[in-house]
Amino acid sequence: MVLEKLADNYCFKGHQQRYSHYSSTLNCQMTFSIYLPPQALMGQPVPVVYWLSGLTCTDENFNQKAGAQRVAAELGIALIMPDTSPRGDNVPDDPDGHYDFGLGAGFYVNATESPWNKHYLMYDYIVNELPSLVMKEFPLSDRWSISGHSMGGHGALMIALRNPDRFKSVSAFAPIVNPVDSLWGKKAFRHYLGENTTSWEAYDTCCILKQENLAKVPMLLDQGSEDEFLVNQLKTDRLKDICDAIDYPLEYRVQPGYDHSYYFIASFIEDHLRFHKQYL
Amino acid sequence: MVLEKLADNYCFKGHQQRYSHYSSTLNCQMTFSIYLPPQALMGQPVPVVYWLSGLTCTDENFNQKAGAQRVAAELGIALIMPDTSPRGDNVPDDPDGHYDFGLGAGFYVNATESPWNKHYLMYDYIVNELPSLVMKEFPLSDRWSISGHSMGGHGALMIALRNPDRFKSVSAFAPIVNPVDSLWGKKAFRHYLGENTTSWEAYDTCCILKQENLAKVPMLLDQGSEDEFLVNQLKTDRLKDICDAIDYPLEYRVQPGYDHSYYFIASFIEDHLRFHKQYL
Repeated sequence: MVLEKLADNYCFKGHQQRYSHYSSTLNCQMTFSIYLPPQALMGQPVPVVYWLSGLTCTDENFNQKAGAQRVAAELGIALIMPDTSPRGDNVPDDPDGHYDFGLGAGFYVNATESPWNKHYLMYDYIVNELPSLVMKEFPLSDRWSISGHSMGGHGALMIALRNPDRFKSVSAFAPIVNPVDSLWGKKAFRHYLGENTTSWEAYDTCCILKQENLAKVPMLLDQGSEDEFLVNQLKTDRLKDICDAIDYPLEYRVQPGYDHSYYFIASFIEDHLRFHKQYL
Repeated sequence: MVLEKLADNYCFKGHQQRYSHYSSTLNCQMTFSIYLPPQALMGQPVPVVYWLSGLTCTDENFNQKAGAQRVAAELGIALIMPDTSPRGDNVPDDPDGHYDFGLGAGFYVNATESPWNKHYLMYDYIVNELPSLVMKEFPLSDRWSISGHSMGGHGALMIALRNPDRFKSVSAFAPIVNPVDSLWGKKAFRHYLGENTTSWEAYDTCCILKQENLAKVPMLLDQGSEDEFLVNQLKTDRLKDICDAIDYPLEYRVQPGYDHSYYFIASFIEDHLRFHKQYL
C-alpha cells in the first residue's frame, strides 16, 4: 500500500483524511491531509484547491482552523494540504532551533546545498510527486488551483507562475512576495540555495513577474492591515505595484484590522474558494 | 484591572479575545475566550451563547476549530468559552494522570470531597462568577443560551435545566446525558461528590428531567451515529426516551457518519447558533 491512512473524519458530508507515505523526492516519510467533498464520494472526479501552509505549520493547521470544508463541500472542491518541509529524525534542522528555517520551513524550493539537498526538495514534491500520487489514489480531476498563507502564499504564487498550465488560478493570504529581500527568505535561501543570489530569483514571485511572456494566472491576494510581518517580511504592496505596471490580473485586497493569524484566513477563505471555483 | 487580555484577533469583523482573571470561586487563575461580534463593537448589548467544552479541552478548542465566529458575526451573538476545570500548579489532578478526571475534566459540578472541594467548583464558576464578570466588562445583554460538547454537553443540559430563568435555550453535541450511569461520570462524581450516589443526581440530566414541574427550555441535540463513545459513555438515546415520555421540547438528531470530533461540531454549529437565535 502506497498510502497509510492515519485519520478519517466525516465532515460536511465529506471526508477529512490524513495519510502517510514515503516520499522518494524528499527521502523521508511524509504526511498530508485531504478533504474529499460529498461529490467525490459518489466517484465523480472533483477539482482541487491545493493549500500550502506557512512557517511552523504542518498539514493540520489549515484543516483544523480555516473552516474551509464547509465551502469546499458546497462547491464540490477537494482540498489537498501537504506538510511544509521534509520530516523525521534523519532530516537536518536549523542548528539553532529557530522556527524560520529547517523543519516546518521548507520554503517550497529545491535545495542545492549540502546537507539540505538530500531532503529539502519541496518544490519537486509539491509540483510533481504529491500531485501524481493523489491523482492516482483519489477521484480528482486535472483542474487544480493553488493557495497558501505567508511562506505558503509565497509557495502558491511562485509555483503557479512557474506552472501556469497546471494551475487555473492562484490566491494567497499575506504571502512573502519578495523572499530575496525579506529576512526570512534571505536566511532560508542562503542555506538551501547558496550564496549566489541569482539562483534565488527562480523562487521569488516579484522576480518571476518581471520575466517576458509570462502566462497570466488569475490571482487574488488578501493582506491584513495589522499584520505584524507586513513591513519586514511580506511586502505585499510590491506585488501590487509590479502587477499594476505590467497589467497582470491581480485582485489585491487590504483587509482593515486583520493580523497574520488563522482567524484572518478563516474570515476570507470562502471568498478564495469561490474565486477559484470560477476557473475550476 | 480584573481582566488581563492575553490575545485579541480580528475575526469576521469582530474580536476573538482571550483573558486571564483570578477566580475567587475556584481559588486559582483562570483563562476564558470570548468572541465579540461586530454589533458589540458598536456598543450594542448583544446576546450570548455560552459554550462548554469536553474532556481535555481548554477555552481554545472551540474558538479555533468550530468555525462558529462566522455565524455569530452574522447573527450578532457573543460566544463565551470558559476552560473545563480549575488550573495551576496548586490544583490537584488525577494521581494516575488520566484525561477523564482532574485537570481538563471538572464536569461542571461543585466538589464536596477533599482535596477537590478547594478548587473544583466549576458549577458555581460557570453559573455565577464568570457570567457576572463578563456582564460587567463587555456589552452583553441578559439574553443567554448555552451549548456544549460531550462533558460540556452534559454541563450545558444540566445547567440549563437547573437555571431555566437564565438560559433561553440549550443545545448539545454528543453529550453525556446520564453521567451517574457512565464510566466517565461515575469516576468523576465518586471523586468530586463522594460515595453517596444520591448527591450525584442533581448533576445528571436524565435524573433532573424526572423531577416534577420542570420549566421547559427549548433543546437541540446532535449525535453522530459513528461516535465511539455513544454506547458506553454518552447514551443520548436515553434523553430522547425521557423527553418523549414527558413531552419535553427536544429536537433530537442522529447525524449519520459523524464521529465525536470537532469536524462533527464544525459541520452543525451553524444550525445550533440559528436555533438559539430564535430565542435570544
